[in-house]
Amino acid sequence: MASGSKLKALIDAADDLLADPAAASSDLLRESINQLKKNVEKLDALSQRDPDLPARQKIQNMSAEVVGSNPYSRLMALKRMGIVNNYEKIRDFSVAIVGVGGVGSVAAEMLTRCGIGRLLLYDYDTVELANMNRLFFRPEQAGLSKTDAAVQTLTSINPDVVLEGYKLNITTVEGFGSFMESLARPFKEKSSASPSGVDLVLSCVDNYEARMVVNQACNELGQTWIESGVSEDAVSGHIQLLIPGETACFACAPPLVVASGIDERTLKREGVCAASLPTTMGIVAGLLVQSTLKYLLEFGQVSRYLGYSALKDFFPTMEMKPNTQCTNAACVERQHEYVKKKPERDALARAKAEADRAVQDVAPLHEDNEWNITVMDDDDDKDVFLDAQTTPNSQILRGKSHTLAMCAEILPEGFLRELPDADDAFRKLDEAFVGGAAAQDNDLEELERQLQALNSD
Amino acid sequence: MASGSKLKALIDAADDLLADPAAASSDLLRESINQLKKNVEKLDALSQRDPDLPARQKIQNMSAEVVGSNPYSRLMALKRMGIVNNYEKIRDFSVAIVGVGGVGSVAAEMLTRCGIGRLLLYDYDTVELANMNRLFFRPEQAGLSKTDAAVQTLTSINPDVVLEGYKLNITTVEGFGSFMESLARPFKEKSSASPSGVDLVLSCVDNYEARMVVNQACNELGQTWIESGVSEDAVSGHIQLLIPGETACFACAPPLVVASGIDERTLKREGVCAASLPTTMGIVAGLLVQSTLKYLLEFGQVSRYLGYSALKDFFPTMEMKPNTQCTNAACVERQHEYVKKKPERDALARAKAEADRAVQDVAPLHEDNEWNITVMDDDDDKDVFLDAQTTPNSQILRGKSHTLAMCAEILPEGFLRELPDADDAFRKLDEAFVGGAAAQDNDLEELERQLQALNSD
Repeated sequence: MASGSKLKALIDAADDLLADPAAASSDLLRESINQLKKNVEKLDALSQRDPDLPARQKIQNMSAEVVGSNPYSRLMALKRMGIVNNYEKIRDFSVAIVGVGGVGSVAAEMLTRCGIGRLLLYDYDTVELANMNRLFFRPEQAGLSKTDAAVQTLTSINPDVVLEGYKLNITTVEGFGSFMESLARPFKEKSSASPSGVDLVLSCVDNYEARMVVNQACNELGQTWIESGVSEDAVSGHIQLLIPGETACFACAPPLVVASGIDERTLKREGVCAASLPTTMGIVAGLLVQSTLKYLLEFGQVSRYLGYSALKDFFPTMEMKPNTQCTNAACVERQHEYVKKKPERDALARAKAEADRAVQDVAPLHEDNEWNITVMDDDDDKDVFLDAQTTPNSQILRGKSHTLAMCAEILPEGFLRELPDADDAFRKLDEAFVGGAAAQDNDLEELERQLQALNSD
Repeated sequence: MASGSKLKALIDAADDLLADPAAASSDLLRESINQLKKNVEKLDALSQRDPDLPARQKIQNMSAEVVGSNPYSRLMALKRMGIVNNYEKIRDFSVAIVGVGGVGSVAAEMLTRCGIGRLLLYDYDTVELANMNRLFFRPEQAGLSKTDAAVQTLTSINPDVVLEGYKLNITTVEGFGSFMESLARPFKEKSSASPSGVDLVLSCVDNYEARMVVNQACNELGQTWIESGVSEDAVSGHIQLLIPGETACFACAPPLVVASGIDERTLKREGVCAASLPTTMGIVAGLLVQSTLKYLLEFGQVSRYLGYSALKDFFPTMEMKPNTQCTNAACVERQHEYVKKKPERDALARAKAEADRAVQDVAPLHEDNEWNITVMDDDDDKDVFLDAQTTPNSQILRGKSHTLAMCAEILPEGFLRELPDADDAFRKLDEAFVGGAAAQDNDLEELERQLQALNSD
């Protein structure tokens, strides 16, 4: 509520009343007007605490001090816990979020609360009550543009974050131009390790066309991005890391769970709409930002593809190699660059391995440290790739999947891919770990034998 | 900002001015006062849109109509998508959330946006800036009790939800009494299928003592509940469904990932604090409410235990039988009742199976329906149980887990349980599905052969 200026007008009106000759003739009237003016001034002071104004001052440096007034204490504690080496570095990073809907808005709020340096938000849509079944937007924001409403709320949550709202449609020629321009502008004048002005792009759009545009932009820039999506029946979702030249791009092999390619406006026109749930969207946003934090702050492993199937609590992961026959020219160009740089990468890997060995010789590390955090290695050779190019279509993974019908219609001709079936996966996992259903009937010795066999490999 | 009453006072002040003899003597003055009064009235109307006042009117019946002003259209679409049969039934349900912190507040917001009937919120803590690294609370709410702040925000988001805030500590004798009383009060006067006045209890507390109290209350009432937790290093979490008598209770075998038993106040006193992330807490809240929706609206499968390990995107699931030697007397009592009712359950299952067969005979169902949703069966026999009582400790599942150190100290003597290792699990899953690392080197025919073998079982 932009009540500040209205209250100022009321104070002016009270001053006009005081200047009126009639007021001069009555002490009581003057007193009443003065009282009224004072009340309006109090109200004006209160309005400074409106949600659209920052409720806390900016903080110069992130501190780990454990006091109730420090909004960063629980984040800086990640260093003491041995999870992140350099948490305060988060302030140097710039993240672009394309689409500020059910996933994008929550992702933006999470990154804002984490104290990210800069957020660029892109959307052309307006908040409406029909969005209230997902987190973030509030009913009183209905009618505002999603970018304005988001910037308003996020500023009040954390004024330390630099927020840039872009109300534009990236699928138009003009919109794409502005999108590319804004991505190129660097943050903090320091040269980023990233090829563009941002460190990561998060795609949180709800249609195929917009995903292909983000793919085009990131392929042209050589910019790493993470794609996200939720199915129209609201019970499946996914995130996918895309590194131009290194992984499959969105045109090489579309992800397993995507919207049907019909955008929201078309659906609305036809009087139908996709289902959505705050749970699924919140989980996908959480997984997306978790991957973002792991990628930027270099901890844990960033899954190349992580799916979520709510009905059976199934979370498949996998990897996809780029398609050398990809129809996207920029993708093929990035692939050639990536292949050319192999000797460079190998040399770096050798140097890193030697440095690691040197460190180990000085102070041998225990396999598990004080917090029992397993140190990750980033050995590419262990990865299991599903090669979209050489593996026959629809034979990569078979199984029943309720997402098939939805993605089939938008897959490039000849592509038909399915998620592994949750039941099969669980059964195989059970069998691998505890001997499956047989474990119930087998005697204790047999179970022990199976466990020992598993532990020995 | 509770400006409504202040504005009302301003209108009264303007009326007093009009009644003043001086005003009677000047048309201009009366006009000015009337204008001022009109402006205040406008402001008053605007203030109806303040965050602490409902920004939308209550809605009598949930509708599936696809218009921008319908906050329930995307939820009711779950029916058309074939996911939920009777979404509007959600208004009949009552859910108690114990602990309105990083997980509980987000869970409350999700259920509120889903249009749950009634929410009971329990917490004794106060909002502070140190909570701002998690979703939900806003800086301007610092100093308010968490229950007051939550009720304020949730009412403005969805005035259709009946909200009850209980500022109390359930671990005190008095607090426990009030907790039990409030759980017993029924909702909507209709007799619930639940043994208490609520349909489900969600535990979102941050310490062991409070979990044991929720466990005690639910065992006494025979009330099903879902426990949730996030590790102190902020990168692991879990949810666990507890059905008194049927599953392990919290005292039978504590969950795999729990806090160390040191509560937040103790930690603060010592100048240290646990780490937390909006991502992990948002994901755990999402999984918790997803399970809640599945449980209440009867769709999909509700995992008995679902873990989340952020570093490797690992989501273990498992089941635990109750411990007949459990130290909790109420748990043992519920177990006896459960055993006694076996013939009743068997008869029900037989009747259901026959009814299902009858339906199939009339109109044979396709395995996958129009939306390719696989119909779940709830055949208990397929479940793999890990029997906490008969399986030797620390041999149930072996593997490296960074949560071990944290849970070891609070497990009952002799219990030492570990999560399966994520790497092992992924490798075995890969091997089971695509022939593992070998798939990279083997030729196409070999891969095809392996895939066909997998598909045939």
